[in-house]
Amino acid sequence: MSQYWSEIVRELTPYVPGEQPRLANLVKLNTNENPYPPSPRVIAAIRAEADARLRLYPDPNADALKQAIATRCGLTPREVFVGNGSDEVLAHAFMALLKHEQPLLFPDITYSFYPVYCGLYGIDYLTVPLAADFTLQIDDYDLPNGGIILPNPNAPTGAAVPAAEIARLAAKHRDSVVVIDEAYVDFGAESAVPLVSRYPNLLVVHTLSKSRSLAGLRVGYAVGQADLIEALERVKNSFNSYPLDRLAQAGAIAALEDEAHFDATRERIVDSRERLVAGLRALGFEVVPSLANFVFARHPGRDAAELAAALRAKSIIVRHFKLPRIDQHLRITVGAEEECRALLGALAAILHA
Amino acid sequence: MSQYWSEIVRELTPYVPGEQPRLANLVKLNTNENPYPPSPRVIAAIRAEADARLRLYPDPNADALKQAIATRCGLTPREVFVGNGSDEVLAHAFMALLKHEQPLLFPDITYSFYPVYCGLYGIDYLTVPLAADFTLQIDDYDLPNGGIILPNPNAPTGAAVPAAEIARLAAKHRDSVVVIDEAYVDFGAESAVPLVSRYPNLLVVHTLSKSRSLAGLRVGYAVGQADLIEALERVKNSFNSYPLDRLAQAGAIAALEDEAHFDATRERIVDSRERLVAGLRALGFEVVPSLANFVFARHPGRDAAELAAALRAKSIIVRHFKLPRIDQHLRITVGAEEECRALLGALAAILHA
Repeated sequence: MSQYWSEIVRELTPYVPGEQPRLANLVKLNTNENPYPPSPRVIAAIRAEADARLRLYPDPNADALKQAIATRCGLTPREVFVGNGSDEVLAHAFMALLKHEQPLLFPDITYSFYPVYCGLYGIDYLTVPLAADFTLQIDDYDLPNGGIILPNPNAPTGAAVPAAEIARLAAKHRDSVVVIDEAYVDFGAESAVPLVSRYPNLLVVHTLSKSRSLAGLRVGYAVGQADLIEALERVKNSFNSYPLDRLAQAGAIAALEDEAHFDATRERIVDSRERLVAGLRALGFEVVPSLANFVFARHPGRDAAELAAALRAKSIIVRHFKLPRIDQHLRITVGAEEECRALLGALAAILHA
Repeated sequence: MSQYWSEIVRELTPYVPGEQPRLANLVKLNTNENPYPPSPRVIAAIRAEADARLRLYPDPNADALKQAIATRCGLTPREVFVGNGSDEVLAHAFMALLKHEQPLLFPDITYSFYPVYCGLYGIDYLTVPLAADFTLQIDDYDLPNGGIILPNPNAPTGAAVPAAEIARLAAKHRDSVVVIDEAYVDFGAESAVPLVSRYPNLLVVHTLSKSRSLAGLRVGYAVGQADLIEALERVKNSFNSYPLDRLAQAGAIAALEDEAHFDATRERIVDSRERLVAGLRALGFEVVPSLANFVFARHPGRDAAELAAALRAKSIIVRHFKLPRIDQHLRITVGAEEECRALLGALAAILHA
């Protein structure tokens, strides 16, 4: 604390990302990274872009990237916003579209950055409890609100809601912006992107960090009708004109062009997930049905923090949240096949020791 | 305007960056880019980093980059903050350190993003007029304030204040944070970085966009005592955990390691600037003495907007601001030697037509 800090800073409780340990030979299942590399076309595009042109500013509007996203979504570039990771996109959405008189609504168990954004921008919020089985019930959001945000699939549970339910939510709350954070949608859930043309209040946020294997490049985007996008552009252009560097723009375009790599990678992860869930259940874990690249599991006979510590002693890192309702769960990223096997082997040894 | 926009968005007046036209064969002297390429070591480092590791998040704290900056500045990493371009660093500084009861002070003629940040964060501000010759007088800032920010050299004038005057400013305003934006300091002005250990209220902001030829990579940093830096980290970690991607971190470290390239490049620009100023004066221009990589000039007999349009017709782009006191000036980036000659030749033709 310092006399120089603004009042906002004094009251902030910053987000704590999953650790990025620098140990070698670690089985790293704690930050939902993709176990497979990005498309070779991404690497080639970045290397081709890394030349003397780095002396020049990037396109501040990232028009070529917006066009690539728009084409993929069946939209126009004016319906696309891009940012430095979906975290930046979400931050701008909180300030531009979710700060109103009435409280913002989001699930009690969800991406833990949401209340942090509310703290940063002074947004009043109310959490809506998930059901006991961690499913999300759209009708529970029948409350006065200034906006609704939810991840689909939800994090850290992995549970998803069908697109028809998202449509029902958007239709019920036509006076509020409904933001669907689809960071994990490409691993089996239904996307709300096709609903954007029908609901002027719907914003759908994506990232290239997970299904495109580009956590290291920092590219996210939002799609929605043009006046929602314009609000985001206004905040962005009052904050940082050039959030996406030349390499990120080139790499992201190349990633979106390689649908074959994208499909092959996510199919492998979905297959591994199903085997991982079966293996965990065979060990006595209760596993929330997941459509994401992670699973959320608890063992009725073992403390989650102790399990996480025992795994860590075997160089396997998973994520444990010390939060109400979920402090007996572990969130485990679906790694490569051999990583999933290593995890199951280690858990078997711990449980039977 | 839309019912979905927050009140802040409705009232924003976003920053307008200098245009990034896509025409070939343009002499582009409008956005203060460096005419020379970055160090070959930067290109090599980026290409080496562009591999399968892009699937993994970058270091959220950019420890290696902070260490490289700290070493160069004779500081510790806890006294260094890094961001996605100095624009992002400045944005966080406005929110974290410059938002207080009393108004923020900055020059009436300065980087036009400053009032935009104030609009974004609801910061009350007061502009302090530069002298008639565009010099900045430290004693003019003897006013109640909640912070002071100024670029040194100033933009778009290029005029600089000696470090001793910055020390005097910091000493006079010990209860406020004084931010010195040194985007252009490496072209001949004195840096305030060595003052940081003496003044707990001093924050100095740098960018790699200009003197390191990396506008396309988006890396900026701030140095100051640890509690100022902590305020920036708190805002950053409430906004976006990973603002610098893997490639930007690797490229920036390589850039800071190549002092020989850095020195050679900025010396060439300083030499070109002196010849450009002499050439402009020979054509009848009044030129503000500049220690930046641009010059600020007016012709007593010609309208600045008309000159800019005539240059554009000859495929030369300079920056003209339609703002009080400076709407008869042009801001001209110091380009490569042949670009400066092309500009002087075109101006001679226009003036003598």
